[in-house]
Amino acid sequence: MDSATPGPVRVGIVGATGYAGIELIRLLHNHPGAEITFLGSQSTAGKAVADVFPHVDGLTGAKTLEAFDGARHADAADVFFLAMDNGRAMEMIGPLLKAGARVIDLSADFRLRDASAYPVWYRLSHNAPELLAEAVYGLPEMYGSRIRGARLVANPGCYTTTSILAAAPALACKAVDPCRVIVDAMSGVSGAGRSRKTTDYMFSELSGNAKAYGVAGHRHTPEIEQELAAVSGGEVRITFTPHLVPMVRGILATVYMDLTGEETLDSLHAFYQEFYADAPFVNVLPLGQYPSTQYVKGSNMCMLGLGLDTRTDRLIVISATDNLLKGASGQAVQNFNIMTGFPETTNLPQIALYP
Amino acid sequence: MDSATPGPVRVGIVGATGYAGIELIRLLHNHPGAEITFLGSQSTAGKAVADVFPHVDGLTGAKTLEAFDGARHADAADVFFLAMDNGRAMEMIGPLLKAGARVIDLSADFRLRDASAYPVWYRLSHNAPELLAEAVYGLPEMYGSRIRGARLVANPGCYTTTSILAAAPALACKAVDPCRVIVDAMSGVSGAGRSRKTTDYMFSELSGNAKAYGVAGHRHTPEIEQELAAVSGGEVRITFTPHLVPMVRGILATVYMDLTGEETLDSLHAFYQEFYADAPFVNVLPLGQYPSTQYVKGSNMCMLGLGLDTRTDRLIVISATDNLLKGASGQAVQNFNIMTGFPETTNLPQIALYP
Amino acid sequence: MDSATPGPVRVGIVGATGYAGIELIRLLHNHPGAEITFLGSQSTAGKAVADVFPHVDGLTGAKTLEAFDGARHADAADVFFLAMDNGRAMEMIGPLLKAGARVIDLSADFRLRDASAYPVWYRLSHNAPELLAEAVYGLPEMYGSRIRGARLVANPGCYTTTSILAAAPALACKAVDPCRVIVDAMSGVSGAGRSRKTTDYMFSELSGNAKAYGVAGHRHTPEIEQELAAVSGGEVRITFTPHLVPMVRGILATVYMDLTGEETLDSLHAFYQEFYADAPFVNVLPLGQYPSTQYVKGSNMCMLGLGLDTRTDRLIVISATDNLLKGASGQAVQNFNIMTGFPETTNLPQIALYP
Amino acid sequence: MDSATPGPVRVGIVGATGYAGIELIRLLHNHPGAEITFLGSQSTAGKAVADVFPHVDGLTGAKTLEAFDGARHADAADVFFLAMDNGRAMEMIGPLLKAGARVIDLSADFRLRDASAYPVWYRLSHNAPELLAEAVYGLPEMYGSRIRGARLVANPGCYTTTSILAAAPALACKAVDPCRVIVDAMSGVSGAGRSRKTTDYMFSELSGNAKAYGVAGHRHTPEIEQELAAVSGGEVRITFTPHLVPMVRGILATVYMDLTGEETLDSLHAFYQEFYADAPFVNVLPLGQYPSTQYVKGSNMCMLGLGLDTRTDRLIVISATDNLLKGASGQAVQNFNIMTGFPETTNLPQIALYP
Repeated sequence: MDSATPGPVRVGIVGATGYAGIELIRLLHNHPGAEITFLGSQSTAGKAVADVFPHVDGLTGAKTLEAFDGARHADAADVFFLAMDNGRAMEMIGPLLKAGARVIDLSADFRLRDASAYPVWYRLSHNAPELLAEAVYGLPEMYGSRIRGARLVANPGCYTTTSILAAAPALACKAVDPCRVIVDAMSGVSGAGRSRKTTDYMFSELSGNAKAYGVAGHRHTPEIEQELAAVSGGEVRITFTPHLVPMVRGILATVYMDLTGEETLDSLHAFYQEFYADAPFVNVLPLGQYPSTQYVKGSNMCMLGLGLDTRTDRLIVISATDNLLKGASGQAVQNFNIMTGFPETTNLPQIALYP
Repeated sequence: MDSATPGPVRVGIVGATGYAGIELIRLLHNHPGAEITFLGSQSTAGKAVADVFPHVDGLTGAKTLEAFDGARHADAADVFFLAMDNGRAMEMIGPLLKAGARVIDLSADFRLRDASAYPVWYRLSHNAPELLAEAVYGLPEMYGSRIRGARLVANPGCYTTTSILAAAPALACKAVDPCRVIVDAMSGVSGAGRSRKTTDYMFSELSGNAKAYGVAGHRHTPEIEQELAAVSGGEVRITFTPHLVPMVRGILATVYMDLTGEETLDSLHAFYQEFYADAPFVNVLPLGQYPSTQYVKGSNMCMLGLGLDTRTDRLIVISATDNLLKGASGQAVQNFNIMTGFPETTNLPQIALYP
Repeated sequence: MDSATPGPVRVGIVGATGYAGIELIRLLHNHPGAEITFLGSQSTAGKAVADVFPHVDGLTGAKTLEAFDGARHADAADVFFLAMDNGRAMEMIGPLLKAGARVIDLSADFRLRDASAYPVWYRLSHNAPELLAEAVYGLPEMYGSRIRGARLVANPGCYTTTSILAAAPALACKAVDPCRVIVDAMSGVSGAGRSRKTTDYMFSELSGNAKAYGVAGHRHTPEIEQELAAVSGGEVRITFTPHLVPMVRGILATVYMDLTGEETLDSLHAFYQEFYADAPFVNVLPLGQYPSTQYVKGSNMCMLGLGLDTRTDRLIVISATDNLLKGASGQAVQNFNIMTGFPETTNLPQIALYP
Repeated sequence: MDSATPGPVRVGIVGATGYAGIELIRLLHNHPGAEITFLGSQSTAGKAVADVFPHVDGLTGAKTLEAFDGARHADAADVFFLAMDNGRAMEMIGPLLKAGARVIDLSADFRLRDASAYPVWYRLSHNAPELLAEAVYGLPEMYGSRIRGARLVANPGCYTTTSILAAAPALACKAVDPCRVIVDAMSGVSGAGRSRKTTDYMFSELSGNAKAYGVAGHRHTPEIEQELAAVSGGEVRITFTPHLVPMVRGILATVYMDLTGEETLDSLHAFYQEFYADAPFVNVLPLGQYPSTQYVKGSNMCMLGLGLDTRTDRLIVISATDNLLKGASGQAVQNFNIMTGFPETTNLPQIALYP
């Protein structure tokens, strides 16, 4: 812990009754150096948190959900976690930063460096483009040192984290064609959030059901390309197809990359292990083993398994995370730990809740 | 019905207590032109079928499960459905054919035309290679006329049916590169069968769990390549990655194909619709719609949806079936209907059990 | 089939896009003596049915969903299935009966004989109380002969059917205390319907989750008591506790009854078998076997299993149905078959979709 | 922590590859005062723990699974958790106690005080009956002070913990008839363990499936009666019916008790709250709320909700736990904390993994 820190860091969670929000409460309520001092929720403002979530009764510092107002609540916390729909954080963040608070934003609002991409992929024009350059992409395995001092962290999404960690080493070592990457991924349903109350997300519709969505144009495409391009040092082109499968938590991404040179599966595997040697939350499995989501559920781990289709010279990397941990709130707490000088693994499970 | 058929066709089901077997019983027990006269099961021979499956009590002609012996039981039925592990049918089929019975084999034993492929992919040497040329690949959408007169039908598997129906039209019209096809597919757990009693297939291990398996070498690869080559008129090379997801029934295949020419999504969609115009069990969805497995569960349908990634010139076809219907027993009954002159759709649901 | 019936019976389904409605479409679209001529839906009026349910494209007579109006559509069908929220049928039924149509109502509107019970249990005052005496309770195992000539059938609900069939024989033979019956039941989520779009019914909330609801006051209580009293010939008092468990289809009821006399498990079992000897959709299992919902899913069966707790002299009857078949639409079609003179089992599966 | 404790308590886990075993590893691997020094497993002896569970690679002190032998391994740990099949602990425990180790046994071997009950309910004769009097029943809410000094703790099972905590206060205050208690309970599948590799526990058999088992004679009956009798001060008779429902974790018990006196729901609720005022892991919900298993999954909590059926004067208590936490390993660690002087809640989650 930073020696200068006199007491616990005051933490505000905005969007506290969403799935990312309640997961932040779970991870932070007994964090040795944090105290939850603010819980924001538009939809249930005024209620006690225990009325919405009976299972957290008495366990958080803040007791009542409040309608968040950046100007009014700016000094209610030292660090704010914003877990709202896309487009909300960019409107609210100004007063927070001005008041000296630090922000970890779990939406897409500050993930893309190019403001002109927002109208294309998110159908909204960015109203705080001047912050895009300052915002640090919150993937500790790539930007750990910059996160430490960041004022604004753009916390990556679940598909992107899972995909980038799978493909980055192969692109970094120039072993594969950067313009022929295919990411075929499946997600647990909690990724859709707690407020998506349409027929599509009801139990009877999704139990026993699998489907593709966002085919040939999902909005996570540019974010993955942006970060893989940063690793590879040149343009990256991907086809990204997300699927919904009947589980609550978990992302499983299968990434196809065409070998361009002489790398072998053994040499690639060694390179992956070296690439993530210092990353406590990335586990490159021994050759012959592949991840399954049950081994990451409830933990902040990303598990990677490598295979090579020698008939077609294609590298296949399977990657698994829990979308609410390493794919959202767990990674946000990892960023928080780095920003505040706590050990990176503080309060972040490394062993899954299995079975 | 063939005018020459005097009474119901006598049907034997071997492997009756597997998932494909019980599904055959369900589809055939009240078939207007069939009578179940034999039920074979090694593991439960001697038991009444109602002791194993209380829900079929009194509903089948045959009451007792018998240990099947090709020589002894050859005249117990006119048509035999063999639903056993790979390697069993090739050993048992001789006496059946000799006695004049017709056979629909649901295993892989007669699917590959090249006997030398069996040691490579199935680790068994074929002991009836002389039948491989005669066996008709039981995909009615491709081989309907040959199936009608067939003595031996090699009923395709679930992954293969779902994949071939998705890719065949695009390859037939030469719109895509035949050597760069990727099939990324997921399966319900019933595909593993009822006798696979390992830890891997237990409820607590698979509920909420997704994983890849058979990466870079699954044995369905050569079967898909064989049939797509037949359609395309030249070599086809695929990478095939199956996944297990937590549902009981259903295959969802996402097929990636690189466009080579000037075809548009509209022209491809029109071609797909024309290609399957006469197929009662293939439903090419309107553009913009994609299949989900809930809409085929319990039916014999294959649903197809087409998308085009214009950023990478890649055609994406999503294909859904119920692995136990169109992917196994339903297709077998479809073949039976064709072989015996019944309307192709007899006793085969076209509307899914939804939800 | 009644010899007088010249052509197919014209069938109207109101509430066609609910789960009971789509199940009626599935069961009736290829019924040998019925033709679907009307599909009513408030929420999607004007749409093609295939736009809502891609999997029924081209398979029903009626193609477009219409906003139902009793007066305007009274002659659109010979028999109407009303599958709407409680309180709707009582408002709409007048013109239908006046025009000579027959009605099978799947709501609770005509199930209770005492109009004064509606304000208590359903919070609505009955506006067609004169029809309550005429309405026949649509449980064929009890009222088969009256259903045959009925103009208005009140189709029982899922919990009630499952509970009544479990307890009726024991009460009929005076073996148990009629005032100490406990029904502890669990339901699949489809019982909540397709339009219940609240957080409670979302996949992420219910997957892996079990809970009780309606504790000490669920509205199915008086319906079960009414019908069991009719069987027992005196007052019946039950405690009924429903639970929601993470499955789509199925009701499992565990009924506790205190023995009052000298009956043994063997004599009770024999009596149950005799009681249901002519019921094609009730299966009293051999002693020692108990039902599970997988053996009734997708079928119109009710499975019963009997046990006796000799330490406490308590009879325990386990009862299983598919809530959308024997618990709703299947039973409605069973009633339709009886009303129109078709064999009772026409188009009604007796073998479950297993697994 | 006890001031006398110089270093971490050395912990041995026998049965480490079962579900209770791996849960113990999860809860203890980063316990501030424990170090895992021994991992026993018969079935996988000699393997590295990471070969069986890739997700715990490098996170436990002990690396290799060993075939446990009481005599040989007695000094491998200070406290042994025995998580084996019934009948094993009684054979192995002698040398451990002799060597001065303390034991927390998760099987049924030391739960019943009457040795003659073992042949009746477990079909095995007890070979260490002299220890039954010494063994402390490991339910901290009832036996906290005795657990502190215990040498041998008999850790209760999941059904029993959930049932006893639900019924104990009502029996303690003599509000209900002790001879008419009914416990109707449902369990997640992980309760069956990881080694039960029969058809019954496969995913395809249990997904979407609910069933009763052990009707009128489940072996947890005497354990519940024994402990409720201790609370009530007289004989208690229960009927206990367990059900299997398609979820991995969770017990939901619905307990029916007949009121005998003048207690009201309000007075009973107040008594329940007072009864558990000092229990950090029991949450008596406000009136009108009932528990669901999602709010306890992954936590060590027991949630209770009370209702009163005024029509039949029956108290209904709904109780929920996670069978692997409060119902097994979590409770074992709670006992460990008490035995070793750590705060009772150390390393035991109070907030569920939701959703």
